[in-house]
Amino acid sequence: MTETNRTESEFVKEITPKSQDYSQWYVDVIRKAELMDYAPVKGCMVIRPYGYAIWERVQEGLDRRFKATGHMNAYFPMFIPESFLLKEAEHVEGFAPECAWVTVGGGEQLSERLAIRPTSETIICSMYAKWIKSYRDLPVLINQWANVVRWEKSVRPFLRTTEFLWQEGHTAHRTAAEAEAETARMLEVYRDFVETDLAIPVIAGRKTEKEKFAGAVATYSIEALMGDGKALQAGTSHYLGDRFARGFGIQFLDEDNTLKYVHQTSWGMSTRIIGALIMVHGDDRGLVLPPKVAPYQAVIVPIAPTKERETVISAAAGLHDRLTATVRVTLDDRAEYTPGWKFNEWEMRGVPLRIEIGPRDIKNNQCVLVRRDSGEKTAVPVDGIEDAVAKTLADIQRALFDRAKRFMDENTHRADTLAELREIVETKRGFVIGGWCGDPDCEAKVKDETGATIRNIPFTAPAAAARCVCCGGEAKHTVYFARSY
Amino acid sequence: MTETNRTESEFVKEITPKSQDYSQWYVDVIRKAELMDYAPVKGCMVIRPYGYAIWERVQEGLDRRFKATGHMNAYFPMFIPESFLLKEAEHVEGFAPECAWVTVGGGEQLSERLAIRPTSETIICSMYAKWIKSYRDLPVLINQWANVVRWEKSVRPFLRTTEFLWQEGHTAHRTAAEAEAETARMLEVYRDFVETDLAIPVIAGRKTEKEKFAGAVATYSIEALMGDGKALQAGTSHYLGDRFARGFGIQFLDEDNTLKYVHQTSWGMSTRIIGALIMVHGDDRGLVLPPKVAPYQAVIVPIAPTKERETVISAAAGLHDRLTATVRVTLDDRAEYTPGWKFNEWEMRGVPLRIEIGPRDIKNNQCVLVRRDSGEKTAVPVDGIEDAVAKTLADIQRALFDRAKRFMDENTHRADTLAELREIVETKRGFVIGGWCGDPDCEAKVKDETGATIRNIPFTAPAAAARCVCCGGEAKHTVYFARSY
Repeated sequence: MTETNRTESEFVKEITPKSQDYSQWYVDVIRKAELMDYAPVKGCMVIRPYGYAIWERVQEGLDRRFKATGHMNAYFPMFIPESFLLKEAEHVEGFAPECAWVTVGGGEQLSERLAIRPTSETIICSMYAKWIKSYRDLPVLINQWANVVRWEKSVRPFLRTTEFLWQEGHTAHRTAAEAEAETARMLEVYRDFVETDLAIPVIAGRKTEKEKFAGAVATYSIEALMGDGKALQAGTSHYLGDRFARGFGIQFLDEDNTLKYVHQTSWGMSTRIIGALIMVHGDDRGLVLPPKVAPYQAVIVPIAPTKERETVISAAAGLHDRLTATVRVTLDDRAEYTPGWKFNEWEMRGVPLRIEIGPRDIKNNQCVLVRRDSGEKTAVPVDGIEDAVAKTLADIQRALFDRAKRFMDENTHRADTLAELREIVETKRGFVIGGWCGDPDCEAKVKDETGATIRNIPFTAPAAAARCVCCGGEAKHTVYFARSY
Repeated sequence: MTETNRTESEFVKEITPKSQDYSQWYVDVIRKAELMDYAPVKGCMVIRPYGYAIWERVQEGLDRRFKATGHMNAYFPMFIPESFLLKEAEHVEGFAPECAWVTVGGGEQLSERLAIRPTSETIICSMYAKWIKSYRDLPVLINQWANVVRWEKSVRPFLRTTEFLWQEGHTAHRTAAEAEAETARMLEVYRDFVETDLAIPVIAGRKTEKEKFAGAVATYSIEALMGDGKALQAGTSHYLGDRFARGFGIQFLDEDNTLKYVHQTSWGMSTRIIGALIMVHGDDRGLVLPPKVAPYQAVIVPIAPTKERETVISAAAGLHDRLTATVRVTLDDRAEYTPGWKFNEWEMRGVPLRIEIGPRDIKNNQCVLVRRDSGEKTAVPVDGIEDAVAKTLADIQRALFDRAKRFMDENTHRADTLAELREIVETKRGFVIGGWCGDPDCEAKVKDETGATIRNIPFTAPAAAARCVCCGGEAKHTVYFARSY
């Protein structure tokens, strides 16, 4: 799954150790594993084949879940007339400053400039207003896989780029309760996908008024903890109420023969989740990919002395043929690289399991499984290899989640005062649980003084805090604070 | 797979018969089957869920074939700096007039305006120049699924819209011969997909100089014949030689230690193929979809008198559960519509096979299969229903291809003179095989006087023509002429 057979010289430089410079480590891993490259267009990146193969796995995992919950995909234009963005006041305020504008098309100045979608609520609502007439037309459950553009000043691969890929769900419902249930359902789909497939534990909860999506009544998020102790918002689900419906006139005739506005949701997950995957599981040797989303779950490396090369390659090929029905497996039979070089290469690329086979293994009718997460080596009989590989992959998937969960738990602290919160954020980092009175001024002050924001108000509340970390007043919520990406 | 439960009133208007007004028939079918809708942005369309579900099948069929031939997907930015387009003279001449330009981003006027990609050769070549250093880096075999924009004055759903979806393959090779072989291989992939999965017969061949891709050395196409006798270019594969490599400096150190330019190809197929699917197979009752790309291959319609409703619905549900592992099947158990209404509905949506089950069928442990293509009804035992359905679907797939092939053959004529060619194009329509001396002036004259262009110079030559239809000079090629979409 390398799109190029790279020259050895590209591997001369080592990956900067995490502990030395986390940001540089992140960029090194991405560059060496050929996940992306900087494009010659400001703020844009190229997703290279190995990175895109991970995205395809993400798409598959999400798309399957969307369809299982009754959603269908569609495609809406990426051009949004300026007048559309203006129809929802908070929405335009939030997004207009980040827009890229098309002003010339087909050699002519346009009479109305067109934004490249930063998100598609407005263009989609304009269509829903045409399609939805009766309560029998509801619910409308549509998702879209698309590129979006938000003009960014500073860029970080996968985490923040001017153009990125995502999916955006947009649904319309008969009642507020149904829309709220959908908002919760899709957040749960995200949680399940991220925890089950990406092996990343998350905190699910509600965003504060200040942090919510521009135009939403309420935003819910899942928040993950990166290896450097910073939080990352991994997915969001918005309850839009009837705000957009009023802006775009999406009304239906209900069974009681009265005209009503629909209630809506939207929800999205983007290529930034690949950044989370790298940061949660990666180590100083490179990527570590959970088996469920690894482009290759296993790589077979023949250990072939020259005179026995043919025998070993043939045994390795047999192993490959045998496993290919149940595992995403590749055989690295390149003669021009040593086994040691290949070990490094595939470890750097995060392949969960290496399968070594050499002359002695062939004699013993066995091969050796080497786990990427733990380095553990086990000799296993070739008979029943399918089951051994499947079991090991399941173990790795579980071990990665457990390790990440332990890291998150160990890096979740409590603070009672602003001084404590600042101390933790600056030294230990991680999540900080604390009380909040609900006042946006306290929220802003915490951010100003510590750089930490309220990540969310968790659904599953930890032991309640009595006092607001900031003002010492009565705590209305017990929340997660953290610095974040 | 309806995203809305539509009101009956939408069905009041009939589909205009093909014979009465083909263009109107086409638009009626698309609108009624909810394949697309016009967007409130000039020249843009919304691909609705049922239309997008067809596109997902197309993506699946192509993507599988691309991967089987060694290609990987990636993603490149949609913004192309103006200076990039200027690097290949023919290319910019061909595409610049159709570009949409971003001139403002993040609230500021850009110093260089950015085209939304009309095609991605230039941005991709700029990356290949970074990635390719050695002969060991070759070949590079990358595909991209993306949206592209070409500013269009007049629009036709699926066939010609300002923004559309497509895939574009971009490969780089060590030698011209390898690149030429790739060009041929990918045209063959298209032919196989279109004939096998879409059941649309095509003519494969080379485009004339005049009709080739802007910047290519040679363009190859597959051409299909629509129900109204007009041709449609269904896919193209371009041999780019080293033209882009020279423009972008894509050089590699070959084994002989000399620097060489790579040889490239590009190839694409777009959502316009859905237009072909509609026009080749559709009839006056609506869509007719080949089983391989039908979102639903079969629909189960229970024929349930009120007092036996529960028994029949339950039997239908059993049938659904039984078939769901092997067939894309849906059960239409809506109580508010009559069976007759449902028959029309699903016929209009082109579902290849209807499965009816009523009280008498249950008694006889059978159900009734009704083919969309022929209307043929067959009672079959419930035991072994999986095989009967699979066999019928295979029969339908074959029958659709055979019918389309017969239509194409019957509508392929020969002409010896310009007068004959004009006569055929204006009365019988279809493909016209004729001789061509190779002079672009003759090609232009034919187009001016008949509206027909040379679709391609076929690989599998029909009986050779001796004289150019236009000038009567010696024929260098025997070509396919037609008016086209």
